[in-house]
Amino acid sequence: MTIKRHEPSQVYSKAVEAAGLVFTAGIVATKLDRDVKGQTEEVLAEIDRLLALAGTDKSKAVSANIWLSDMRLREAMNEAWNAWTGGQNVPTRATVEAKLADPRMLVEIALVAAK
Amino acid sequence: MTIKRHEPSQVYSKAVEAAGLVFTAGIVATKLDRDVKGQTEEVLAEIDRLLALAGTDKSKAVSANIWLSDMRLREAMNEAWNAWTGGQNVPTRATVEAKLADPRMLVEIALVAAK
Amino acid sequence: MTIKRHEPSQVYSKAVEAAGLVFTAGIVATKLDRDVKGQTEEVLAEIDRLLALAGTDKSKAVSANIWLSDMRLREAMNEAWNAWTGGQNVPTRATVEAKLADPRMLVEIALVAAK
Repeated sequence: MTIKRHEPSQVYSKAVEAAGLVFTAGIVATKLDRDVKGQTEEVLAEIDRLLALAGTDKSKAVSANIWLSDMRLREAMNEAWNAWTGGQNVPTRATVEAKLADPRMLVEIALVAAK
Repeated sequence: MTIKRHEPSQVYSKAVEAAGLVFTAGIVATKLDRDVKGQTEEVLAEIDRLLALAGTDKSKAVSANIWLSDMRLREAMNEAWNAWTGGQNVPTRATVEAKLADPRMLVEIALVAAK
Repeated sequence: MTIKRHEPSQVYSKAVEAAGLVFTAGIVATKLDRDVKGQTEEVLAEIDRLLALAGTDKSKAVSANIWLSDMRLREAMNEAWNAWTGGQNVPTRATVEAKLADPRMLVEIALVAAK
């Protein structure tokens, strides 16, 4: 079994390949003055970048966990999500509310894709 | 790598097969006037249906994420859960409290099974 | 597809092997008078034990979900986490706040490793 780690810090790797799958970390935005749609766009662009590092892309998305700081943000998050997927090759998804690491963080997404 | 998506909407797939595993979406009940036991029964019946679409069944359950709107509902959820598993072939499980998409939703379950 | 279940109770298995991966349950401490660093140490020691049962170890960690009862505990949790990983072979990670099964539980961790 080969395991490949992408952009590991001391604490966690941004993405890990194993067993034919690619797992991303829970990704949050860095531009925290943006609204949830803007933050989701940044998160999904970062996920695109990580999937490319792992030799795959969003067309092979398998499963997503989405945490929102407030469930009322779901529709605005979905606008960015739907633009990203284009309604094609959509993964499974579970979306729940949770307090995130910084109160200005409105959305966090962890994706599993296939290679 | 073959990826197979079951019942995709514009937003997410109900189940996705990849790398020898089947991932279900986070499933919630549709009959939201029911108590947590009834909602859990509906969720698990839907998971059975999705696993069958993917050519597997609960005897190959690997891992479950369960979100409860209130942790005090855990025992009543477990009654439906234990009836479903029959104490056989039980997956790993993580159960935490989270606000769900609709305040009447009391439980959400995402399951990973093997093919 | 062979599925191997470790230490199943009536309700869930402590760890399950499938498709080249090992999934642990959401593990919590049993010594609930300890602070979050002590609880994290106990949780990670239990994860080490479960990975060994499944014939693997933390050097093959792929992905972790961490739930904290209060996000302000993150730095103290990370002290135990960083001592455990040694900054080597770090998995992906998503850390969010959630109410756990008992109010004295401060941290819950579910790990996916490769075999």
